[in-house]
Amino acid sequence: MTGPIAVVGGTGPEGFGLALRWTQAGETVIIGSRHLERAKEASERIRQVVGPAAKISGLENGAACSAADLVVLTIPFQVHAALLKQLKPAIRPGSIVIDTTVPLAASVGGRASRTLGVWQGSAAQETAELIPKGVSVVAAFQNLAAEVLNHDGPVDCDVIVCGDEADANQRVRDLAAKIPGVRALDGGKLENARILEQITALLVGFNLRLQGHSGIRITGLPPAAYRSS
Amino acid sequence: MTGPIAVVGGTGPEGFGLALRWTQAGETVIIGSRHLERAKEASERIRQVVGPAAKISGLENGAACSAADLVVLTIPFQVHAALLKQLKPAIRPGSIVIDTTVPLAASVGGRASRTLGVWQGSAAQETAELIPKGVSVVAAFQNLAAEVLNHDGPVDCDVIVCGDEADANQRVRDLAAKIPGVRALDGGKLENARILEQITALLVGFNLRLQGHSGIRITGLPPAAYRSS
Repeated sequence: MTGPIAVVGGTGPEGFGLALRWTQAGETVIIGSRHLERAKEASERIRQVVGPAAKISGLENGAACSAADLVVLTIPFQVHAALLKQLKPAIRPGSIVIDTTVPLAASVGGRASRTLGVWQGSAAQETAELIPKGVSVVAAFQNLAAEVLNHDGPVDCDVIVCGDEADANQRVRDLAAKIPGVRALDGGKLENARILEQITALLVGFNLRLQGHSGIRITGLPPAAYRSS
Repeated sequence: MTGPIAVVGGTGPEGFGLALRWTQAGETVIIGSRHLERAKEASERIRQVVGPAAKISGLENGAACSAADLVVLTIPFQVHAALLKQLKPAIRPGSIVIDTTVPLAASVGGRASRTLGVWQGSAAQETAELIPKGVSVVAAFQNLAAEVLNHDGPVDCDVIVCGDEADANQRVRDLAAKIPGVRALDGGKLENARILEQITALLVGFNLRLQGHSGIRITGLPPAAYRSS
């Protein structure tokens, strides 16, 4: 059991799916949205699926961040930097920001099967530049399709977790492993987030060309390398 | 059955492993090397494993290219451009060049878990710029570890195939599927090779951090998307 998890942009399909899965696992989850009413509506939908004991609520994004130890960003890249600047005062020192953002070229009218170059190297590294000191950034969940999260049953996808602080990475791997089917893996430093982000573009290309909701598994590592529930 | 396959740099572990697997599958394979004697020595080692009926031989790299329909580049990035310029006259019009090269930062004294930026976008796109007209370039096999290829038994790794010509891509998917355990997937255009190349850096990082010989599987696509033997 971790502290409250705020899912910023949690009314979108990716954030909603993550919030649903963590609520099902017994975690305390706060859906964040620009609009309080939408956040509450999404949290009620999750309560209806999970049941009356669900520890789910909805708040405006800033209030959600202030109430949480773990802040999960599930927002489109086009609002990524601006929203982070706005949320910065609300993010508590000592908390972990988990960035799922992928800088798809679709953000600027291009293809969802291509990424934009981000000056810092990746969207997650941009986040590291914009958040308050004393907050850890961890990149994860980019490759887990919203459609898969929002279906019943275990997902067939590994979650690769990248970040510069071992403790924060471990907490995020634990959190990822609460989603049935996920095996969480240490992907190394935050700079590797660029690869996770690009893998998403490759998976989007598969989905468009071959019709599916693709994910990725890493093979060939010893069992101890994988964290799963 | 395809025409002869030339494996340029086939005395190295990746090229040797591919040559071994394709020879085992009954293909006609030519090991290419800068040194004729080393090429012959490697081809004899493969003959000893596969048996006297093995259709394997060894030639100097240029002669290997001239004798083949399929040319597989398994060379370090630091010699990639120079060797291609040298081999250009030897590559037959109508043939397919399969590039397995990854521009690891180790090429210039950096880490094998990072890539270099290649001006054209990827090593494979650099190849496309350097080869003769009328030759197709296909990117594949970057994520298949040499250690895994050189072990007995099926590999636990998918091969993603990227290239701009559908027929050439299909031929390379067929070739990949001859390796037991491989599922070959259409990875889209050659420009996507940059993602395959970076995945290798991620896998190298896993291998160093977690001790293994990692590979990848793509999940969530319909069975018809995968080509396997």
